[in-house]
Amino acid sequence: MATKNAFYAQSGGVTSVINASACGVIEAAREQKLIAKVFAGQNGIIGALREELIDVSKESKKSIEGLKHTPSGAFGSCRYKLKSFDESRAEYERLIEVFKAHNIGYFFYNGGGDSADTCLKVSQLSESMGYPIQAIHIPKTVDNDLPFTDCSPGFGSVAKYVAVSTKEASMDIASMCETSTKIFILEVMGRHAGWIAAAGALAQEEEGDAPHIILMPEIAFNRNKFMRKVKATVKEKGYCVIVASEGAQYKDGTFLADSGTTDAFGHKQLGGVAPTLANMIQDELGYKYHWALADYLQRAGRHIASATDVAQAYAVGRAAVEKAVEGKNAIMVTIERNKGKKYRWSIGEAPLEKVANVEKMMPRNYISKDGFGITDLGRQYLQPLTEGEDYPPYKNGVPDYVRLKKVLVAKKLKKAFKI
Amino acid sequence: MATKNAFYAQSGGVTSVINASACGVIEAAREQKLIAKVFAGQNGIIGALREELIDVSKESKKSIEGLKHTPSGAFGSCRYKLKSFDESRAEYERLIEVFKAHNIGYFFYNGGGDSADTCLKVSQLSESMGYPIQAIHIPKTVDNDLPFTDCSPGFGSVAKYVAVSTKEASMDIASMCETSTKIFILEVMGRHAGWIAAAGALAQEEEGDAPHIILMPEIAFNRNKFMRKVKATVKEKGYCVIVASEGAQYKDGTFLADSGTTDAFGHKQLGGVAPTLANMIQDELGYKYHWALADYLQRAGRHIASATDVAQAYAVGRAAVEKAVEGKNAIMVTIERNKGKKYRWSIGEAPLEKVANVEKMMPRNYISKDGFGITDLGRQYLQPLTEGEDYPPYKNGVPDYVRLKKVLVAKKLKKAFKI
Repeated sequence: MATKNAFYAQSGGVTSVINASACGVIEAAREQKLIAKVFAGQNGIIGALREELIDVSKESKKSIEGLKHTPSGAFGSCRYKLKSFDESRAEYERLIEVFKAHNIGYFFYNGGGDSADTCLKVSQLSESMGYPIQAIHIPKTVDNDLPFTDCSPGFGSVAKYVAVSTKEASMDIASMCETSTKIFILEVMGRHAGWIAAAGALAQEEEGDAPHIILMPEIAFNRNKFMRKVKATVKEKGYCVIVASEGAQYKDGTFLADSGTTDAFGHKQLGGVAPTLANMIQDELGYKYHWALADYLQRAGRHIASATDVAQAYAVGRAAVEKAVEGKNAIMVTIERNKGKKYRWSIGEAPLEKVANVEKMMPRNYISKDGFGITDLGRQYLQPLTEGEDYPPYKNGVPDYVRLKKVLVAKKLKKAFKI
Repeated sequence: MATKNAFYAQSGGVTSVINASACGVIEAAREQKLIAKVFAGQNGIIGALREELIDVSKESKKSIEGLKHTPSGAFGSCRYKLKSFDESRAEYERLIEVFKAHNIGYFFYNGGGDSADTCLKVSQLSESMGYPIQAIHIPKTVDNDLPFTDCSPGFGSVAKYVAVSTKEASMDIASMCETSTKIFILEVMGRHAGWIAAAGALAQEEEGDAPHIILMPEIAFNRNKFMRKVKATVKEKGYCVIVASEGAQYKDGTFLADSGTTDAFGHKQLGGVAPTLANMIQDELGYKYHWALADYLQRAGRHIASATDVAQAYAVGRAAVEKAVEGKNAIMVTIERNKGKKYRWSIGEAPLEKVANVEKMMPRNYISKDGFGITDLGRQYLQPLTEGEDYPPYKNGVPDYVRLKKVLVAKKLKKAFKI
């Protein structure tokens, strides 16, 4: 079989370990004779459309290794969804032009649910447009909402960030509550699924420990029930800690806070659950509050990444390459949880056509009966994903993260493509 | 000389290293023959007034050692300011009653500027009310605004947290800005002094790196100048990162965001600079934004504490005890920066009457000419304080912080005291 080049791109919101997957792809590709070079899309799929391909072979071995401890998307990512063949034939034709011009036969797409859909469409180019390509999806999303995989790389680290931060902030308020703040609210990511908020529960050592209330989108917000629980907790503990998903919502699907703007995928841009709740509590119960909004800090927090997550992110990158050279197409690499009491995992795969655009919510039996916490089953699922520390090296007091040279391959096409 | 007991209390907002100072006090006291027992105030000075004294000797050696890596106030803290002798004679009489009843001759007060004032008043009890006591102030404040000490324990760690978080979030937005967010704002603590916000600059490796704008209370906010800088930065870099002090203010002293409530010391309770700036930018320039509010996460973030800060916090605790047994009274222990290019520090002291209620601002020559960044001099000051990592031990994926038993000493006074 003739050698082909590989295209790798990062898509959607970045995580603290997506570069570990990139590292896995690049290191594995270097070991494979069938793959000549790896070209990374500058700013994701947009890089392919614009023929802005980063020549990964120009980066040092040390820089590529360093990706394993570097957060964000080292090659740039984007929020850009390819429409259907019929709606956007020009885009697919352009992709084929670029792939042909650069002898690209492997397509590795590192993203979440929306990106799985793009990857699926690319995998169908052979059939739909007569261009032979193998497309493999590498899972990534802090939201943990991809189906068929036990977890999504990126989630374990944000879960650890939220668990650690919740624990630390809870200790802070506990030591001050006698004369000061009674309510602390941490707002975390999670548009439709409560996985990230649920991870706040890992801060608990004993029953009754903070966080006392977790608000997940899966459970409709009931103001009266919530206020009763807040009041009872302050009465009993002297303070109350709440971890709230940005996507916390009422029974009718209205978000508690809705800024009203939407992103390129049509998702509503959220933010503001914490202040909404804080004002609600102060109006009704009069307690002094503090709140934090972790925003990018949580998904970029490589300094407190989960070692398990880093290992899995790297492994799915490697596996994508190995599966590609085995001839696989139109699959997503998955993490499988092995049977047995001790947590062990291995690599599997799932057909992309089943993955695309499906969101995995928290199962009801992971959520406590009152809807404000998690069950033992939920804890057994979540805890191992946050296990282990994997500290980056430091220089001058801050992490020494890698910066790539990002040398672009010379363009071969005459025409520019307008995004 | 007869042995006396010591009283130790934590005051005001807690930090990720105030317990390291407690550890220093307790370990040093155990080595001193003049000090019999250490009693810690439950919830700070309130514990003394209520005769709620924690018997530190009931804690294991391991627990006390563990305080060195445990954030928050392990004995509880409070926001409670003693008024003058004239205004609140009953409180001082009560303190003397409690001190007498428990044979307390040493008073160690661990706090910031307001607490230094309380400590000074206690130090004057000998003279004003005829009760012999030595009062030593142990500096602590994330705000770094105590005078006479080169830095305040607690600050180095929050500075490191802000530097690390700014660096990580900046990398996140850099990799997404092509198609998504253009503006990221991190709101940090700092009511009147910009030290914490300034530490965001330590995220920079090279000139022009994020954060591009730092807003400190020391420099009056000029909307036009700010907007010009934001626009120019987005044009040049594709994105703009802003670190803003909660105390950022206009020329007339109006805070950019003012929630209108005040704490027990009469300070305005702030929060909301980030969303204020975000809306301002969107209205005028139309950029998509994200913002984070670190709140308690920054001052409780022991998982990313500065090793230098931990060592200094421990050292000032030890030194307080050593100075007390030398006969010192009415002083604050200080950190002195030694001369020379390489950062070295030692312990000093300052008279409390000069310390109390004085706030140390960022000197103008630490702030860049345009007011949006720091100078080399500022960097030379800040950077060493964040140097070194001092990771806590972990258990089940989260830090294994110490919980004390907090056994109260049997009360000897009949009368309760109402706070």
